[in-house]
Amino acid sequence: MKTKLKIYDTTLRDGNQALGVSLSLRDKLRITEKLDELGFHYIEGGWPNPSNEIDCTFYREVNSLKLKARIAAFGSTRRAGVKVADDLFLPQLINTGAPVATIFGKSSTLHVQKVIQTSLSENLDMIAESVAYLRKYLDEVIYDAEHFFDGYRSDPEYAIKTLSAAAQGGAASIVLCDTNGGMLPDDFLAIFSAVKERITTPLGVHLHNDSGCADANACLAATAGAVQIQGTINGMGERCGNANLCTIIPNLQLKRGFRIVSDHQLSLLTPVSVFITELANITPNCRLPYVGEAAFSHKAGAHADGVRKVRHSFEHVPPETVGNARNFVVSDQAGSSTILEKLSTIQPSLDKKDPLVKKLLHTIKDLEAEGYQFEAADGSFELIAREVLGLFKEPFSVKGFRVIEEKRENGHVFSEATIKVRENEVFEHTAAEGDGPVNALDNALRKALVKMYPSLGSVKLEDFKVRVLDGREGTESKVRVLIESSDGESRWGTVGVSANIIEASWMALIDSLKYKLMKEMLAKTGAVRRAIRRY
Amino acid sequence: MKTKLKIYDTTLRDGNQALGVSLSLRDKLRITEKLDELGFHYIEGGWPNPSNEIDCTFYREVNSLKLKARIAAFGSTRRAGVKVADDLFLPQLINTGAPVATIFGKSSTLHVQKVIQTSLSENLDMIAESVAYLRKYLDEVIYDAEHFFDGYRSDPEYAIKTLSAAAQGGAASIVLCDTNGGMLPDDFLAIFSAVKERITTPLGVHLHNDSGCADANACLAATAGAVQIQGTINGMGERCGNANLCTIIPNLQLKRGFRIVSDHQLSLLTPVSVFITELANITPNCRLPYVGEAAFSHKAGAHADGVRKVRHSFEHVPPETVGNARNFVVSDQAGSSTILEKLSTIQPSLDKKDPLVKKLLHTIKDLEAEGYQFEAADGSFELIAREVLGLFKEPFSVKGFRVIEEKRENGHVFSEATIKVRENEVFEHTAAEGDGPVNALDNALRKALVKMYPSLGSVKLEDFKVRVLDGREGTESKVRVLIESSDGESRWGTVGVSANIIEASWMALIDSLKYKLMKEMLAKTGAVRRAIRRY
Repeated sequence: MKTKLKIYDTTLRDGNQALGVSLSLRDKLRITEKLDELGFHYIEGGWPNPSNEIDCTFYREVNSLKLKARIAAFGSTRRAGVKVADDLFLPQLINTGAPVATIFGKSSTLHVQKVIQTSLSENLDMIAESVAYLRKYLDEVIYDAEHFFDGYRSDPEYAIKTLSAAAQGGAASIVLCDTNGGMLPDDFLAIFSAVKERITTPLGVHLHNDSGCADANACLAATAGAVQIQGTINGMGERCGNANLCTIIPNLQLKRGFRIVSDHQLSLLTPVSVFITELANITPNCRLPYVGEAAFSHKAGAHADGVRKVRHSFEHVPPETVGNARNFVVSDQAGSSTILEKLSTIQPSLDKKDPLVKKLLHTIKDLEAEGYQFEAADGSFELIAREVLGLFKEPFSVKGFRVIEEKRENGHVFSEATIKVRENEVFEHTAAEGDGPVNALDNALRKALVKMYPSLGSVKLEDFKVRVLDGREGTESKVRVLIESSDGESRWGTVGVSANIIEASWMALIDSLKYKLMKEMLAKTGAVRRAIRRY
Repeated sequence: MKTKLKIYDTTLRDGNQALGVSLSLRDKLRITEKLDELGFHYIEGGWPNPSNEIDCTFYREVNSLKLKARIAAFGSTRRAGVKVADDLFLPQLINTGAPVATIFGKSSTLHVQKVIQTSLSENLDMIAESVAYLRKYLDEVIYDAEHFFDGYRSDPEYAIKTLSAAAQGGAASIVLCDTNGGMLPDDFLAIFSAVKERITTPLGVHLHNDSGCADANACLAATAGAVQIQGTINGMGERCGNANLCTIIPNLQLKRGFRIVSDHQLSLLTPVSVFITELANITPNCRLPYVGEAAFSHKAGAHADGVRKVRHSFEHVPPETVGNARNFVVSDQAGSSTILEKLSTIQPSLDKKDPLVKKLLHTIKDLEAEGYQFEAADGSFELIAREVLGLFKEPFSVKGFRVIEEKRENGHVFSEATIKVRENEVFEHTAAEGDGPVNALDNALRKALVKMYPSLGSVKLEDFKVRVLDGREGTESKVRVLIESSDGESRWGTVGVSANIIEASWMALIDSLKYKLMKEMLAKTGAVRRAIRRY
C-alpha cells in the first residue's frame, strides 16, 4: 500500500478566485475546520498582504483552532531588484505564524521577460533567495513552479533551472503547476516523468481544468510518484476551476490503493462538499463525480434494474464510501440511511423499525420535495425529529405577523413589524422597528418572548443565506433561507422554505429560537447535551 | 494533419438521461439542426420503441430536415432466445428510416450471466446475428460494446470475443464503452491499445465521467487511433454525465492538429452550448472548459495584468476560436486596471486620463467598500459607467414604495406593494399583489412601466441571490442582492446593497429594467450593441 501522498488544499485561496465566490473571514475559518476533519495535510489560508484584511486576520485567528493540518501561507518570490527582507510581501508570510509558506515563482521565459519583465538570471536568484530566506524562519517551504508545463515546452533547460534554484534554496517540495490548465494527459505525463528523472526534491502538482483533464492528470502524477496533490473542494477556482480533491482522493484511494485519509474521513467527502457549496453560496453542480447529487442517481430503467440485481453493475464504487447515496428516483439529496444515521445520534436507543421512524422519514422526504435541505440546518432537523418522536413540544406559538416596508420620497426606508404570540395561555401582541423586515420581525419576536425566556437574549443571528430553488420563475420562485445562530456556546442552523422570502426567513427565525429553548430544556432535564454542529 | 476522426453525438439520447432533463420532440429537432451546423458526423436521435412516442416521431420528422449529419437510431441486440426478426425492438431500428443503427451488447460476463441472465455463447450469437440482420437493411451498423472496460478487466478473452462477434456480423465500427465511467487514464489507455492490436474493425469510444476522466480518456483514445468519439454537448448525461464534446473537440483540434470541424463551426461551440443549456432548462455550469461563462474570466489581479501584457500568458487558447470571450471580472480582488479594461469595451475611444474615468473609478471603489460587487453584475456596472460618462440618462425615477406583508392566523401570507414612478412628466401610482414582497414590487413596477416601455414585458428574472455581508450582526447586517435577468436574447446581472433586504432587491430590480431600456436605446441609436453576456 502506498502511503506518502499528501493533500494540499487551496479552496480558501485558489477556490476563492472562482467566479461568483467571495468567502468571508468566518466562512474561511469554518471551512478550515471541515478540511481538517477530512484529514487534509495542508490547508492554504490565503495571500496575506496589507491590502487583504481578511487573509491577515485569518492567520491570526486560525492559530486558536486546534488543527491537525498544517496551515500554509501563500505568496510569491521577492520582486525583481529588491532584497528579500525589504520585499513588501515576503516577510508577511513569516508574520502569519503559519508553519508553512508556499511561494510561487516563474518557470517560463515568456513570463519572466514579458510579464514580470526581468532577466532570466535575476529570476533564478529571486527563487533561490526567497526560498532560502523563508526557510530560515519556517518549518517548511513549498515552491510552486507557476506555468511550469508551458515553460518546459518552450525552454526545458531554463524551466529545470528554476526548479534547481528552488531546491538549492531549501524547498521541501516542488510543485509543478499547469497554471493555464492547458495540458492534455499524455504530454502532461511525459513532462512530469522527465522532471522526475532530473529533480530529486519531492514533487507535487497544481492543476487547472481548462482542458477538462486536471483530475486525470493528478491521477497520472500520483501514479508516477508525485507526493503532493494541490486542489480544491468541488474543483472551485479561477476560470474552469482547479483539480477537484473530491474526485482525486476517491480515485486514488478506492481504485489505486493509496491510503490518503481514513475510511471515515472519506465518507465525509459528500457532506463537506455540500457544506462548502452552501457556504460559498454557489449553485451546486449535481454532476460532480462522487459527491454530486446525480453521481449515483439512476434514471435509465435498464440501469436501475441492473443495479438492483448487482450493485456494482452500474456503479463504479459504492456510494456510501464517499458519503453519497444511491438514488433511483429523480428526487432528493439524502438517502434514508443518512437520515437514520442522523437520528441515531439524537436517540441512540431508537429501534429503526419503530413506526415513528417511518413517519419521520416520510416527513423529511416530503419536506425535501418542497425544497428543504437539512445539510446546513441540523437545528431544524433536530426540532422536527424530536417533535415527531414526541420528545419535544413547542413552547410558544405565533398567531401571525404583519410587516410594513416603506421607502419614502426622501429615500429613507422604514420597517415595522407587529406580531402576536401565545406562550402557554398568555397572548403577547407587540410591535418593533428594524433595519429591514427580517430584523423588525426578529426584534418584535424577542420583545414578546424574552420576558418569559430571558436566555433568548443571548441568541445572535450569525448568518443568513437565501437560495432561489428554481431560477426559472424569477421573483415568483420558491426561496430557501438558511439562518445560523449562536449563543456564544454553540451554533446551530435552521431553515425555512416559501415562495415569500419574508415567510421563509420567519420560519428559520422561529426555528432558531425554538432550538435554543429545546437545548435549554434538554440541559435542564439532565439529558446529554450533544454538539449538534461539529463547529 | 489527421483527418479521420468522426464525432458521434448522443445528446438527444444519453444527454437526455441527465438528472432534471427531459427534451421535447421540438427541442430534439431544434437541437438536431444545431448539431448539424456544428459539423458533427453522426446524430443519435433516441431509442425508438413502441413505448417511446417522442423518439418514434422524431425519426419520422427528422427526415424532412436537410442535414449533412448521418442520423443514427439506437437500440440493443436481440433478446436472448428470440429470432432477430421477431425481436420486439430490433426491426424498429430499420423502420425509422435512419441510415445508421447503433446497437449495444454485453461485453462483461457479469452482465451476461447476472443482469440479462443468459449464456455466454448465446450472448455472442445475439451480437453477431443482430448486427448482421441490421446490416442487410441499413447503410451502416455501429456496435457499442457496453461495459467493455469492466468486462475486459474481469475476462479479457471473452470481452474480445464479443467484439469479434460484432465484426463478424459486419459492424462498420466498434465502440468501446466505459459505461460506469470508472476508468482512470493509464488503465484506459492500456486496454484501448491492447484491443487495437487485436481488432481490425475501426474503433470508437463512449465514455462516462464518474471518475472525472472521460475527456482525458477521449483524448488518449483519439491519439491512440480511435476513429469515432461519442459524447454530448456540455457532457450532459446520466449520473456524472458523458464525455463532453465541447471540451474534446477543441482539445483535439486546437492542440493536436485533428481537423474535425471547420474553424467557423468550432466558433459556434459556445453559442450552441448555451442554446442547449437553455433549451434543456438546466442551470448553466459557468466552469465548463472552453464554453463556460467563467472559462476565460480573469479575477486575480496578477492574471488580468498578465493577460494584458501577453494574451496567452493566462489563456490556454484564444477564447474566440470557440466563440467565447475574454472577461475581466470586476471584483475586490481585481485592480483598477481591470475596470479600465472593461470600460474600454463600453467606449473604446475613451482616454484613460479623462477626469470622468477617475470619477468612475472612485465611484466603483466607494460602492465596493459599501459592499457592492460587480463580478456577477455587469448590468449595474455598465449602467453606472454610462451614467458617469454621460452616455445614459435614467429613463424613469421611482418616488417611493410601500410593501405590506401579513401572515394571518389561517397561515396565509399576503403581499401587497404600492409604488409611485415618474416617467418624464407623467406620474404613475400603482399597486399589485405578489407571491412575496419582491414579486409584489416587481409586479407593481412592471404595471407602471410597461405601458410606456412594452419591451419590458419580455424581461424575465432568472435568478435571485442574497448574500449577507460580514459584520456578524445577524438580521441587522447588510445584504447584497444579485439578480440575473434575460430577455430571451441575452442575460445580465444587477446588484443592490442595503441593510434592508427589500430595498436591496428593489435596487437590483430597478437596475435590471433600466439596463434593458439602455440596451434598447443603444440598439436604436445605432450604437454597436455589445453582447454583455455571450448569449
